[in-house]
Amino acid sequence: MAERESQIVLGLDPDLLSLWPGSGEALGSQHDIEPFQGGAVPVETGPEERTAVAVASHCRALIDATAEACVAVKLQLARFEVLGRHGLAVARGLAAYARAAGLLVIADGKRGDIDVSAAAYAAALTDGIEGPFGPVPGLGADLLTVNPLMGRDALEPFLAAARRSGGGVLVLVRTSNPGAADVEDLELAAGGSVWERIARLADELGERGVGESGLSDVGAVLGATRPEHLARARELMPAAPLLLPGVGAQGGRVQELGAAFAAGRAGGLISASRSISEAHRSSGEAPARAARAEAERLRESAWALSSEVCATS
Amino acid sequence: MAERESQIVLGLDPDLLSLWPGSGEALGSQHDIEPFQGGAVPVETGPEERTAVAVASHCRALIDATAEACVAVKLQLARFEVLGRHGLAVARGLAAYARAAGLLVIADGKRGDIDVSAAAYAAALTDGIEGPFGPVPGLGADLLTVNPLMGRDALEPFLAAARRSGGGVLVLVRTSNPGAADVEDLELAAGGSVWERIARLADELGERGVGESGLSDVGAVLGATRPEHLARARELMPAAPLLLPGVGAQGGRVQELGAAFAAGRAGGLISASRSISEAHRSSGEAPARAARAEAERLRESAWALSSEVCATS
Repeated sequence: MAERESQIVLGLDPDLLSLWPGSGEALGSQHDIEPFQGGAVPVETGPEERTAVAVASHCRALIDATAEACVAVKLQLARFEVLGRHGLAVARGLAAYARAAGLLVIADGKRGDIDVSAAAYAAALTDGIEGPFGPVPGLGADLLTVNPLMGRDALEPFLAAARRSGGGVLVLVRTSNPGAADVEDLELAAGGSVWERIARLADELGERGVGESGLSDVGAVLGATRPEHLARARELMPAAPLLLPGVGAQGGRVQELGAAFAAGRAGGLISASRSISEAHRSSGEAPARAARAEAERLRESAWALSSEVCATS
Repeated sequence: MAERESQIVLGLDPDLLSLWPGSGEALGSQHDIEPFQGGAVPVETGPEERTAVAVASHCRALIDATAEACVAVKLQLARFEVLGRHGLAVARGLAAYARAAGLLVIADGKRGDIDVSAAAYAAALTDGIEGPFGPVPGLGADLLTVNPLMGRDALEPFLAAARRSGGGVLVLVRTSNPGAADVEDLELAAGGSVWERIARLADELGERGVGESGLSDVGAVLGATRPEHLARARELMPAAPLLLPGVGAQGGRVQELGAAFAAGRAGGLISASRSISEAHRSSGEAPARAARAEAERLRESAWALSSEVCATS
């Protein structure tokens, strides 16, 4: 992050109805779906192949346009699974493409399951497995979003896998949707809310994962739309990198996220999807140019804020 | 369920180290990965293709052996995602194969996310989408396991998609792992535990989904290893079909699950994976024969129990 002077995460959350113009025209190249791992498109292509290729092409154009201003991409796995048969290949190809552009890769799958199932998800999202006939590669993500409902033993296999590749996990702590009130905000008999208890759980889980930077390899996801929760979350998880989705289209503002940087400049990862990919709709520029400008605007604004916070703390 | 006199769900949870003998030998047939949707295996096959074919072949043999004794299959999605590039095709092929054998399909993905992301996951697991170049098929599942941490608005898109195809959702309420104590069992200031609150949420969500059978299209997942929770869950969710994993290998016993059937014979779905697929390890019979015998033993025992409960209630 210091090298790139950026805390911006490019959200890859491709909406099939809003692909950039030209994305559907890339069909035919062998390397469209999974450029770094040889996933050729079958010669006879139907709607499923064409859709997969269009999404891969759109996302690669987005990465090309904005990589310089960003430090990571976040793949919303739902948008790749809905591509059907080629969904995982597209996601894996994009993860490799982003890595080649110097970006970290966040797999936003919000997975949560127990023992062998959690381990299988974790391997799928990181370094893959050694199968009975040889290696089966994984997505190659550095950071995984995980769902803590099932408790500590449902999170540990994800952390173990992420640590094998030098990465970490981001625990859902307090999300940005209205439904967060239904479970996350419930008050506990012992005091505090469910989400505050989850924050403590994340902090404990990451205790032994604090590196030289002072940050842990167990971070948290906090919706950027409710900055009042941020200061409290920082108190409960002093070493956690905080992934802050919801800036832009969902109403979150960078200027309100200062508390994240009380743990240092790398304490906050600011994720934006639609505000970057659809910037051309309000600016009238070409999509790539508008996306680059918006990513750079976010980068500057977050970097300046983190400089301020770190100078005064 | 009445027609098949069965409440047994065959868990498809393939462990790469415990595939049935012969599963790796099916390579070469065009129809191995996705028999009903034309997903041909590429001519040049590496470890990733061979592993995918072996898993598909193992699971088809399991379905062939046990379908008569079962009412549904449950695909543990983690085990298919870890197959890499062909994982979703294998899962989709098996869902179609199970359906052709007269079985319902449960997608056990424990997904939870908000608005457009939840809708994308839900479409991926049910009827697919109409893409820009034509239809992209989904997994075709009837029932989806969902994670309620993010609240009601994170569940509704799953329910909406499942209802479109006449299916429903199964909300994680109280899981069978030790970590369930970390969040699910926390006591609330307003009384009761987090999981009891989630049970109420599931009951409310399913209020308008109660059909002629008296059962709702919003069910719940409850670990079969803690039968003491079952009676309470039935009180809180009188119309919910309960999916009960954990019988056999995890220590749950059919005889202790009677409370599920207080809502009728279809009130409990008893899921077993390893106890069926690995029955040959203790019996010494051929895998298919041992699996069939174990599935039939579970079917008889659950059906008899439900007859007793329904006669006395």
